[in-house]
Amino acid sequence: MKRIGILTGGGDAPGLNAVIRAAVKTADHQGREMVGIMDGYDGIIDGRWRVLTAEDIRGILSRGGTILGAANRGNPFGRKVMRDGQEVIVDMSDAFMAGFEQMRLDALIAVGGDGTLRIALELCQKGLPVVGVPKTIDNDLGGTDVTFGFDTALHTATEAIDKLHTTAEAHHRVMVVELMGRDAGFIALHSGVAGGADVILIPEIPFDLNVVCRAVEERAQRGRRFSIIACSEGARPVGGAQMLARAGDQITAERLGGMGQRVADWVGRNCGMEARCTVLGHVQRGGVPSPFDRWLATRYGAGAVRAVAADHFGCMVALHGTRLVDVPLTEALAVPKRVDPEGEPVQMARELGIVFG
Amino acid sequence: MKRIGILTGGGDAPGLNAVIRAAVKTADHQGREMVGIMDGYDGIIDGRWRVLTAEDIRGILSRGGTILGAANRGNPFGRKVMRDGQEVIVDMSDAFMAGFEQMRLDALIAVGGDGTLRIALELCQKGLPVVGVPKTIDNDLGGTDVTFGFDTALHTATEAIDKLHTTAEAHHRVMVVELMGRDAGFIALHSGVAGGADVILIPEIPFDLNVVCRAVEERAQRGRRFSIIACSEGARPVGGAQMLARAGDQITAERLGGMGQRVADWVGRNCGMEARCTVLGHVQRGGVPSPFDRWLATRYGAGAVRAVAADHFGCMVALHGTRLVDVPLTEALAVPKRVDPEGEPVQMARELGIVFG
Amino acid sequence: MKRIGILTGGGDAPGLNAVIRAAVKTADHQGREMVGIMDGYDGIIDGRWRVLTAEDIRGILSRGGTILGAANRGNPFGRKVMRDGQEVIVDMSDAFMAGFEQMRLDALIAVGGDGTLRIALELCQKGLPVVGVPKTIDNDLGGTDVTFGFDTALHTATEAIDKLHTTAEAHHRVMVVELMGRDAGFIALHSGVAGGADVILIPEIPFDLNVVCRAVEERAQRGRRFSIIACSEGARPVGGAQMLARAGDQITAERLGGMGQRVADWVGRNCGMEARCTVLGHVQRGGVPSPFDRWLATRYGAGAVRAVAADHFGCMVALHGTRLVDVPLTEALAVPKRVDPEGEPVQMARELGIVFG
Amino acid sequence: MKRIGILTGGGDAPGLNAVIRAAVKTADHQGREMVGIMDGYDGIIDGRWRVLTAEDIRGILSRGGTILGAANRGNPFGRKVMRDGQEVIVDMSDAFMAGFEQMRLDALIAVGGDGTLRIALELCQKGLPVVGVPKTIDNDLGGTDVTFGFDTALHTATEAIDKLHTTAEAHHRVMVVELMGRDAGFIALHSGVAGGADVILIPEIPFDLNVVCRAVEERAQRGRRFSIIACSEGARPVGGAQMLARAGDQITAERLGGMGQRVADWVGRNCGMEARCTVLGHVQRGGVPSPFDRWLATRYGAGAVRAVAADHFGCMVALHGTRLVDVPLTEALAVPKRVDPEGEPVQMARELGIVFG
Repeated sequence: MKRIGILTGGGDAPGLNAVIRAAVKTADHQGREMVGIMDGYDGIIDGRWRVLTAEDIRGILSRGGTILGAANRGNPFGRKVMRDGQEVIVDMSDAFMAGFEQMRLDALIAVGGDGTLRIALELCQKGLPVVGVPKTIDNDLGGTDVTFGFDTALHTATEAIDKLHTTAEAHHRVMVVELMGRDAGFIALHSGVAGGADVILIPEIPFDLNVVCRAVEERAQRGRRFSIIACSEGARPVGGAQMLARAGDQITAERLGGMGQRVADWVGRNCGMEARCTVLGHVQRGGVPSPFDRWLATRYGAGAVRAVAADHFGCMVALHGTRLVDVPLTEALAVPKRVDPEGEPVQMARELGIVFG
Repeated sequence: MKRIGILTGGGDAPGLNAVIRAAVKTADHQGREMVGIMDGYDGIIDGRWRVLTAEDIRGILSRGGTILGAANRGNPFGRKVMRDGQEVIVDMSDAFMAGFEQMRLDALIAVGGDGTLRIALELCQKGLPVVGVPKTIDNDLGGTDVTFGFDTALHTATEAIDKLHTTAEAHHRVMVVELMGRDAGFIALHSGVAGGADVILIPEIPFDLNVVCRAVEERAQRGRRFSIIACSEGARPVGGAQMLARAGDQITAERLGGMGQRVADWVGRNCGMEARCTVLGHVQRGGVPSPFDRWLATRYGAGAVRAVAADHFGCMVALHGTRLVDVPLTEALAVPKRVDPEGEPVQMARELGIVFG
Repeated sequence: MKRIGILTGGGDAPGLNAVIRAAVKTADHQGREMVGIMDGYDGIIDGRWRVLTAEDIRGILSRGGTILGAANRGNPFGRKVMRDGQEVIVDMSDAFMAGFEQMRLDALIAVGGDGTLRIALELCQKGLPVVGVPKTIDNDLGGTDVTFGFDTALHTATEAIDKLHTTAEAHHRVMVVELMGRDAGFIALHSGVAGGADVILIPEIPFDLNVVCRAVEERAQRGRRFSIIACSEGARPVGGAQMLARAGDQITAERLGGMGQRVADWVGRNCGMEARCTVLGHVQRGGVPSPFDRWLATRYGAGAVRAVAADHFGCMVALHGTRLVDVPLTEALAVPKRVDPEGEPVQMARELGIVFG
Repeated sequence: MKRIGILTGGGDAPGLNAVIRAAVKTADHQGREMVGIMDGYDGIIDGRWRVLTAEDIRGILSRGGTILGAANRGNPFGRKVMRDGQEVIVDMSDAFMAGFEQMRLDALIAVGGDGTLRIALELCQKGLPVVGVPKTIDNDLGGTDVTFGFDTALHTATEAIDKLHTTAEAHHRVMVVELMGRDAGFIALHSGVAGGADVILIPEIPFDLNVVCRAVEERAQRGRRFSIIACSEGARPVGGAQMLARAGDQITAERLGGMGQRVADWVGRNCGMEARCTVLGHVQRGGVPSPFDRWLATRYGAGAVRAVAADHFGCMVALHGTRLVDVPLTEALAVPKRVDPEGEPVQMARELGIVFG
């Protein structure tokens, strides 16, 4: 076997370049050629790829982003496009297979999250030799203890909470920080605990705003006239988002900004304290990857090439404890990972006095 | 003279604790006592103050916030309060003067921004011996080259822009980062230049959204399918904020979120590229002060005590070049500092290709 | 059970305060009292301890060091002291037991490394109710996947390597960075891989300086006229440290400085390139703990109190994958953890082109 | 005028790439071509240069190092080389002038420190059109308030001191950090004050080790059983370096390691406290430039091109207060900048309780 393709798909995550670099170096050590495919699966259809050299990967270990790009138009086997004002599903399988043929690859390494890995699994089921590398900021992928990107996102989130602490305390403010996590609240949970937040709102535990308010007020009564609220973008109040709208509002929830801002507005109006919101957004996806993420991403990239060499197709590299293992993609994708509302970490956080609403 | 009071007022700024620490140590060296007043001028009225000891200032040099608190209810000589649903102005001068009397201070050091220093000037004019120390995140105070806090805020802002760069590039996004600055755009200008932003929107230069869109599109045509926009919270479009509202909207500008989000919405709808917004908010006011800010704040704290010793009342310590000087408060407060739209830095930025809308 | 003691021993590690804070909060939640013992086991003998309150732990989550101090004079059951110019072993068991008695503790939580935990085990074997919390910068403790402190140390080490990269490249220099690790090379291995070092020297793999030199020279021939060497303080050349001394030198190795400096000297003299050395030293033990370390330390502190509540004495809290578990101290202390010269990470690093000498 | 050369010389400093980038962009705006010369003046002699394009400067704003390299063999007009075991001075002026001729430059921008700028001045005096840009980590250049690189170095140094604080305090240690500065102690002075060092040793103030020891001991007596010593590499004890050697030593000072290690050894032997040394070395020259340094370096790069356009040859761009100015190279090089032992900053530091030995 001589030629391996590699692509990165889905949202950005610090460590993607470290995966690519390690894969290229390891392949080179094994006498294989690594082909870089641009913008995920799109690059196969569009014929945008090139052999990656030592020069291409120079200096990228510590850089965020991905030299391969990751902006793609969706699943090649069922892509939603607009035609004459109507959304239609287009099957690009033929173009995809023709492109794959043309690249003369002996194997493909697909680095990505749930979406990218599901397509990888579909390709495997069609007989293509694919190995997956898990990537998610949100830590919402099964089959592995953790993936790269999450640790760096925690740094950004925790640093923000650290900074809000002093100013909240000096000015008697309620500070809300809205963090990534549509369906999984790991970033808010971990950075909230690490940053000493007083309230943590996550998608897995619907919150009651009155409980949040009471927590803020009880702190004020104990002389702690400030509170920090870590809020996942996907956190949801009990009873639905509507309850956050002001009475008589015709404005849809989306219009009123993200969940963090709405919580801040509500607390500001109801708890008698000024509240401010920080929306970190994509800042969490960028930056220099942390040592942990570089170490893990490097192991993943090297491990994926070793998996290819061992014909472990249909698998994904994963971390179990300190060991690197291959797990079947079917297994990894079976159940998305979520914060367990009854698990030890949430229980611990509650015992520390953190309120989950 | 034996007893000096010190207070901190207005918004938080990294370096406040360094000023307090240096003032206490310098006073101690001169055989003076330093009295810490809580929550700005309020502490004088409410009698909340205590003599600061070596123990009080231990370890605070590198901490954000202020050990004295800064949450106050406004000008004691004309405080706006709500009575029976009506805003009335209350004059607390008598209570203030009585409190001041009781503290038996020989001088007062007031650390703060425009508001705090104007009250300091008023006190001086009433005959009280006050020395000012300038503090502003926004760098909008005259009379000094720069104050502490601004440099640390630039770190936070520039680091955010750095992080957005890689993810914007990998995903072909327009990234807007909303930065502090209601009236002065120094944070957006400096961090935008330092972070390599493509567009900088500041209060001093009203922007035309079509110009912004064109800049974004021209970059895309040159193969740079992403753009970074640094936007002051106080930036304003030509023609006023209304033009950002969607047609037919009854929603006031305030409802639609901050200026950053609205610029992102507009660009996303009109430039055919996905746009995302990060709102840093109070994160910019917090954090470990930078070495520059600690150095400057320490010099200010020591310099204020020296100014007291020299009977330089009615003055504010200031930095001119590398020299620490005392400038009259009247002079410092005469004209607020703003970005000069025709000045060398803006001119330079334009020649670098940065668009100001 | 009502009263638990907690002490921290051995070298500093970021996260100690987070352990203490979580233990105090969790104990409070359970209606227990937490007693802080100063300077490790010494505080028991000397009677230096106090009940820890909410005030004591305020703001310490993100601070390095330990509010309990950790400077102790060694094992109370066999302490080496100098008497009349002679080293004698003194048994302080009686004083220790008397002190322990006086504190009226129902359990003791001992946070520390190999030394501290061995004493904890000895105490358990004497019938005292002790729970251990593992702490090591070096990651050299068995029984757990990892402990807190290591991740923060990696940040400091990797950041230093990052910084050396650009200057090494611009000036064609060989940069040696000496890192902690007397017996275990985890810091050098992980930060070397994460930082893109070209050579990694660790205690577990004796190095041949000629191999190091050849690696540096081969890079230069390929146009990479700089190299980065990550060197554990405990790295040893094949044949012993003597071979590094200049011919005819009577100077002992210790005199010539640490291993990093000696490698730099040797490379500078023998490879025809200028070499410089950075000795990070205790900087690696300090600083704001990383989110990972705060999260883990918090879980450890809470977990230790839960272990006390469950009468799991003689155990140590540990991380297995993502789960917090209790492992017997005997098991944890049975074999010190070392880098496996034949393991996957070293193998991977070699395939990436990293030379281990 | 159409063609400008740019070179970087001397030691590395964060911000060099920002100067290059701004110069290329500004030249492009003016319709000029920018030629990048490799490895300082050597590139002119060796014919190693190329026209810099937008592609060359992409993404370099935030990177340390210099894309032009800076490793050179010294002054082309009087270069020291070894011939037959003897050092001889070689005049390369003819080769230099021929190279310069061949490049068909209309002007040259030389970015560097004292050495590089002196050669620039010599070139001007020979009639070549040269503009200088000051660069020094040490802040030892006259004619300007400050140059880029110094602020970033302060970050690295201050962060190290911050990290040493907690571990020094927890373990009752004396921590010495050796910082850059052969002849000028600005890094040690500024980072020492910003980091809260107890003792600062700089080249401009010879120190008495007994005074240092007394300061350490007095702190211990006041219950502060730790001390932080910031020590310039060029600090010198009263009476010369010999006094640091152990009695009877035949070992030259150089052999015993840098000044920081020797101070730590001495304090450890004489003050009855354990002392440890961190040698930051070239880590201070690397890393992501701070926002301040990027802002200043960008202004310098743009300002140098404007100076070329205005025929201001023989000048150096400089910062006076907040204004960018051109100063004659003769003036800037007349007197090297040093810490004034009697100046306000040192005086202030003494009043804060800092001991200068």
